Amino acid sequence: MRTKTLDQQTKMLDAAAKLFGAQRFHEVRMEDIATEAVVGKGTLYRYFKDKEELYDALLGRASQQFLSRLSQAEARSERPRERLEALVAAIINFFDEQPHLSDLIQRSEILVRRGGTFGWQKTRDEVSHLIRGVFDQGNTAGEFTIRDPDIMVLMFLGGLRSVIRFGTKPRAPDLAQRIVTAFLQGADISHFEDINRN
Amino acid sequence: MRTKTLDQQTKMLDAAAKLFGAQRFHEVRMEDIATEAVVGKGTLYRYFKDKEELYDALLGRASQQFLSRLSQAEARSERPRERLEALVAAIINFFDEQPHLSDLIQRSEILVRRGGTFGWQKTRDEVSHLIRGVFDQGNTAGEFTIRDPDIMVLMFLGGLRSVIRFGTKPRAPDLAQRIVTAFLQGADISHFEDINRN
Repeated sequence: MRTKTLDQQTKMLDAAAKLFGAQRFHEVRMEDIATEAVVGKGTLYRYFKDKEELYDALLGRASQQFLSRLSQAEARSERPRERLEALVAAIINFFDEQPHLSDLIQRSEILVRRGGTFGWQKTRDEVSHLIRGVFDQGNTAGEFTIRDPDIMVLMFLGGLRSVIRFGTKPRAPDLAQRIVTAFLQGADISHFEDINRN
Repeated sequence: MRTKTLDQQTKMLDAAAKLFGAQRFHEVRMEDIATEAVVGKGTLYRYFKDKEELYDALLGRASQQFLSRLSQAEARSERPRERLEALVAAIINFFDEQPHLSDLIQRSEILVRRGGTFGWQKTRDEVSHLIRGVFDQGNTAGEFTIRDPDIMVLMFLGGLRSVIRFGTKPRAPDLAQRIVTAFLQGADISHFEDINRN
């Protein structure tokens, strides 16, 4: 039996990413992926037993790359706010570089609700955990205090998704900084309102 | 030629919503929808020329209902912050009542990137416009001032989507209020930090 190589696998995943990005899931055939990757159909099946497994591998690879980019971004500064900015920039860049990834994730979310496997939930949890950690560091360092962090982690990451999918392009060069500033500043709530509500 | 009635149409759309919610788009057949709606296949085709048209009609109906619920919510208070809370509650309730709608929208987003029609973009624009309006009212009324409203509308609505899809259930009874409070308050940014950044 021939061994599997990372090079071969990369070639097939790149081909699959391209086709899944351009067609509906059920329209993409294993044959097409093999052709696109310039490998035999038998070789493709030696690496991935079916289309679902290939799809999962594709999301798995994207997840690994994503998380590794985020740890690099996080390591760039000791200061929580700068860390948050670096993370936001890394998240936006990553998805901008791979315009089809977001659709692949969406599709996997729809599939999982119907009993499929889901390649992104674990990633989402890890990213939430990472952002939550930086919120906590902001508090400990006395830089900023997020009062309802559970909700604000959801709002933060969901908000970023909207900026990525629906925000204007090309991106403003200071976009990440603007997002973090706007998010941390919230609104100037009038004193009158504060007294009445809290 | 027999006339079309709203009752008949409602029956078919309800049946379609149920099936599209439970199966992949390409797995749902017009026959199945007719059977589920207890109408003849010919009748179904008299109302909708194909599955795509039916899908669009489904999203169109959801959009109408959604926007009408949001105007009711908006009318509930003159005060911008309470308005925002009422809108958030209405948005969360609407999607919680129709658990498959969010998947239908996601799917239509994926399709439009591949040249399909898109039933929700206009709705998204209207909701953004509505929220942006309440941000402006908050400013005018002196209740709160959102400094970067373009970005914050995206963050707000994207954040709500995440709360709806990934937030804990059952919902906390004061969830809408907590979201608005957390969002408007942002973080207490330390004075030191402020001086250094602005």
